[in-house]
Amino acid sequence: MMKVMKALRVNANRLSLADIAIPAYGSEALVRVLRSGICNTDLEIARGYAGFEGTIGHEFVGVVETSTDDPRLVGKRVVGEINAGCGICELCLGGDPRHCPERTVLGIKGRDGAHAEFLALPARNLFEVPDRVSDDEAVFVEPLAAAYGITEQVEIDPQTRVAVIGDGKLGLLCAFCLSLNTANLILVGKHADKLAHAQMKGRDIETATLPMIERFPRAFDVVVEASGSESGFSTALDLVKPRGKIVLKSTFDGRPAWEASRVVVDEITVVGSRCGRFEPAQELLSTKKVRVDDLISDQFDLADGVEAMEAARQKGTLKVLLTTQ
Amino acid sequence: MMKVMKALRVNANRLSLADIAIPAYGSEALVRVLRSGICNTDLEIARGYAGFEGTIGHEFVGVVETSTDDPRLVGKRVVGEINAGCGICELCLGGDPRHCPERTVLGIKGRDGAHAEFLALPARNLFEVPDRVSDDEAVFVEPLAAAYGITEQVEIDPQTRVAVIGDGKLGLLCAFCLSLNTANLILVGKHADKLAHAQMKGRDIETATLPMIERFPRAFDVVVEASGSESGFSTALDLVKPRGKIVLKSTFDGRPAWEASRVVVDEITVVGSRCGRFEPAQELLSTKKVRVDDLISDQFDLADGVEAMEAARQKGTLKVLLTTQ
Repeated sequence: MMKVMKALRVNANRLSLADIAIPAYGSEALVRVLRSGICNTDLEIARGYAGFEGTIGHEFVGVVETSTDDPRLVGKRVVGEINAGCGICELCLGGDPRHCPERTVLGIKGRDGAHAEFLALPARNLFEVPDRVSDDEAVFVEPLAAAYGITEQVEIDPQTRVAVIGDGKLGLLCAFCLSLNTANLILVGKHADKLAHAQMKGRDIETATLPMIERFPRAFDVVVEASGSESGFSTALDLVKPRGKIVLKSTFDGRPAWEASRVVVDEITVVGSRCGRFEPAQELLSTKKVRVDDLISDQFDLADGVEAMEAARQKGTLKVLLTTQ
Repeated sequence: MMKVMKALRVNANRLSLADIAIPAYGSEALVRVLRSGICNTDLEIARGYAGFEGTIGHEFVGVVETSTDDPRLVGKRVVGEINAGCGICELCLGGDPRHCPERTVLGIKGRDGAHAEFLALPARNLFEVPDRVSDDEAVFVEPLAAAYGITEQVEIDPQTRVAVIGDGKLGLLCAFCLSLNTANLILVGKHADKLAHAQMKGRDIETATLPMIERFPRAFDVVVEASGSESGFSTALDLVKPRGKIVLKSTFDGRPAWEASRVVVDEITVVGSRCGRFEPAQELLSTKKVRVDDLISDQFDLADGVEAMEAARQKGTLKVLLTTQ
């Protein structure tokens, strides 16, 4: 008898909860999902971004049920790197499956995702979660890895003046991570209730609202654009100093117009930044250097996934988690 | 009696040759211009780019007539760094007057330019031209410095696969410079007559036309966009490999739409690149490592400057020089 599970799916731009077969996993690991997190990318995919159809979701913590390739993982609580490379191309062989042109990406490209009772990933993509990291926290490993990945692309030392644009989930995580490297950091947003997290849980991160930030034109060595809006890039151009760096973190469905000449004349470097390594993110959570519990706005049963997506879309909402029974 | 000179000027988007007073030079150096070169930026300014009004032109060689600050320069043949910083801001004191927010730029911003019989620049901006560099060649020091400047922003070693997009003056100079560092370079353009320069004067640079280049998707470590066209950036995105670098060289009047998400997903770095140091450019010309004489399409008297600009605008034209009597 075929095993059936619930999954939150997008098909033809329509979001629905469906009963489908558990994923075919072959020699990959089958993971029973405990919690999954709704990311802005999920909301964008539901609007048509990336052209993906299938089960969405890529932030999760789960328990390994089956793992032919690495049987030691069975029963372990894991999180998972979302990119699965072909394993044989130049990039994969060079240790960079994240950019393999034939890759699948959990819940984003060619591979059903995490807002489901079960998911499949290669065993090599899975990382055992330390005991000190709770299920709720573990869901943040993937986005936290993406935020911390900035520090592996752009040098940020205690003197570096950093502005993070965007007070949503990703912007807050970027600010939390980068403020470990520099005290010269300011978080720029539009929402007082979200910016307030910069001062919670012992954090002491300076904030500014968008009109106020105009007092600091071209003042920052590094500007992280994590607002997910088309206007974010032009705000970044206003804030970055000549020869400074703009880090682009947001993926969205759009083709913003940009002042290319200004990038040239001011010799600005724009760094596209997507995923990061899981090990440092687990370390940050395990040592409590980064706290994420105050970022959880709401929890829903997976069965109420459509409603959860609607809640995640509301202004003022940060992370919404889905839980399985 | 006030000394009068000819100058090629843009006012209210109108280009004209005028008789005006020689520039007020104060303690700056007064330079009698021997030759000046028409750059695409001049053509863009005549169309309204940068909002500049006054004498255009920023590529030149001339002889110093007066120099209070550095009398040793008088009578010397010189070229000039086009950016004049305020001298007192953080950037100027840090050795980067090119990005001083209060800077003037010869023939581009707040300072009359080189398509004239005389120009004024601070003595510290001037570089004596080696005897082995001809007047015609010396006009190329500024754009060649801009091209060679790429090597000081992006690492290019013999293994680096480079594509240069644009077979105009700047694209050719970029290809000539970067092919000194790597043999894995291809020049991409639309014009067979311009691409032919890649094989002249002992050069051996591979070329491709735009439809042909589609055979090499995402194949290049570094893509230099020097086409001056809005479509150049999307071609660059098609050619650059994941985690590769796109160097933007073109300044133009426009706000191209761009696939910001692709820069993020492929973690591409976009490097704005404008000016470069004059010393290595003079060295390249002096040692004949870079030859530029075949890039001169035409020479006009300054008195025929309006006609010269028209000639420079024609398809197939490379560098047009203006000469004074």
